[in-house]
Amino acid sequence: MTLETLSENRSFGGTQGVYRHRSQATGTDMTFAVFMPELVANERVPVLWYLSGLTCTHENAMTKAAAQQWCAEAGIAMVFPDTSPRGDDVADDEAYDLGKGAGFYVDATQDPWAPHYRMWRYVVHELPELVGDAFAIDREAMGITGHSMGGHGALTIAMTHPERYKSVSAFAPIANPTESDWGRKQLTAYLGDDRAAWRAHDATILMAEKGFPREVLIDQGSADQFLDKLKPEALAQAMMARRQPGQFRMQQGYDHSYFFVQSFMADHVMWHAERLL
Amino acid sequence: MTLETLSENRSFGGTQGVYRHRSQATGTDMTFAVFMPELVANERVPVLWYLSGLTCTHENAMTKAAAQQWCAEAGIAMVFPDTSPRGDDVADDEAYDLGKGAGFYVDATQDPWAPHYRMWRYVVHELPELVGDAFAIDREAMGITGHSMGGHGALTIAMTHPERYKSVSAFAPIANPTESDWGRKQLTAYLGDDRAAWRAHDATILMAEKGFPREVLIDQGSADQFLDKLKPEALAQAMMARRQPGQFRMQQGYDHSYFFVQSFMADHVMWHAERLL
Repeated sequence: MTLETLSENRSFGGTQGVYRHRSQATGTDMTFAVFMPELVANERVPVLWYLSGLTCTHENAMTKAAAQQWCAEAGIAMVFPDTSPRGDDVADDEAYDLGKGAGFYVDATQDPWAPHYRMWRYVVHELPELVGDAFAIDREAMGITGHSMGGHGALTIAMTHPERYKSVSAFAPIANPTESDWGRKQLTAYLGDDRAAWRAHDATILMAEKGFPREVLIDQGSADQFLDKLKPEALAQAMMARRQPGQFRMQQGYDHSYFFVQSFMADHVMWHAERLL
Repeated sequence: MTLETLSENRSFGGTQGVYRHRSQATGTDMTFAVFMPELVANERVPVLWYLSGLTCTHENAMTKAAAQQWCAEAGIAMVFPDTSPRGDDVADDEAYDLGKGAGFYVDATQDPWAPHYRMWRYVVHELPELVGDAFAIDREAMGITGHSMGGHGALTIAMTHPERYKSVSAFAPIANPTESDWGRKQLTAYLGDDRAAWRAHDATILMAEKGFPREVLIDQGSADQFLDKLKPEALAQAMMARRQPGQFRMQQGYDHSYFFVQSFMADHVMWHAERLL
């Protein structure tokens, strides 16, 4: 496996790097970012996965989430994957919320998406293995978070693989995509008309059916311009009906932007650090 | 107005007192407790009302909630009212959840309860006036919290009178009494069969209809033995659907006891103090 270094910058005593590799999962080149804190001796550090939202690449959160300072303080790594396959031969759509930048963290089964849109296996299987080989991270101490479509990814992935992810949180997640304009279109395109196949990719359904064996943290802004698509009330209901340990916070006046994400990043990084260290 | 001092004890540099007075609201003698922190100069301090749950008197939280240390540190007073009228000529029921110790913070309109069961006006109007006259508290800086039936009282009172209560929180509140065995029986007995009269006393309905103009904090234990009666999922759904600022926390493994209340009392007192000081 070859990993090409695109850039590395000193950041809070550690290193913020951007890397490219050939992905077997997507059949394309993929770019991702990793923040590594200053290492003590030869110890491996816990790692927090950050999944981004619609239209994002590996870069948005890396530059705008202000996570590095907290990861450095806590002594944990953060990985920022891309949100879809890229390249001229990869199917796309004119809409911002389908195709490139909108992989929805599923493995597509429908044409024209099936050949490359394999973001679930990329994020859950291929990239952790690659990062575990190339960086001093402890794959037994992984947490996952994300924003919007990435919050959807983080919650669905963690609830499906609680043995792999010790901790999970989300910022303004797409919480009930099978009942949302952010979800029905994409799940139909990627997975087909059979709604049974969608259920594994809906955080509210997974919360009702299985939950997560440890505490969950969810932050949502009350002035979010996409609340009608995110549907936090559905996930909150499912969470409390299940008696899922954790907390659901409605943050007054915050919108859907990275100004919101940045404002609560310290809480989330420290939440994961407490559970991973 | 005559206030009889039943006891006063030094506590964390302040005073924990128990007092008796003749109540116009209930037409009975009523006993309540007040914790006053050490006063600085002649300043009046903010006050946090603590409403207790079924079977309680003024005494339970006073002795078991370990609130005094945090109120002393924050410099706020706490008042602990009783949960019903008392006395030989006061109607009662054999059940623990109706009659004495179970006033539900309503003004009864139905016999045999109507003559004395006026806990809403007692807690909201009469007692604040009395306490404001007798103690160095600032009636412009009042918050309210409570446990179980008292959480129900705190939430319904605060949403009805947001101009009087600057802050509100609840421990394991009876969240949707119009749909619960802890609610339907009592609201029928005290207010009659007309469910329209019940709506003003259901936190989930009030949350859906009007909410609270500032942040709300609710804690619930995941191992609470009364979850089927408390219905936190209904209130969480209403809260997030409204985009009500605040947080709903499901605390792993905690039950309905004062060990739960005590474990999160510091968070609640400090939450109120931040908003009252």
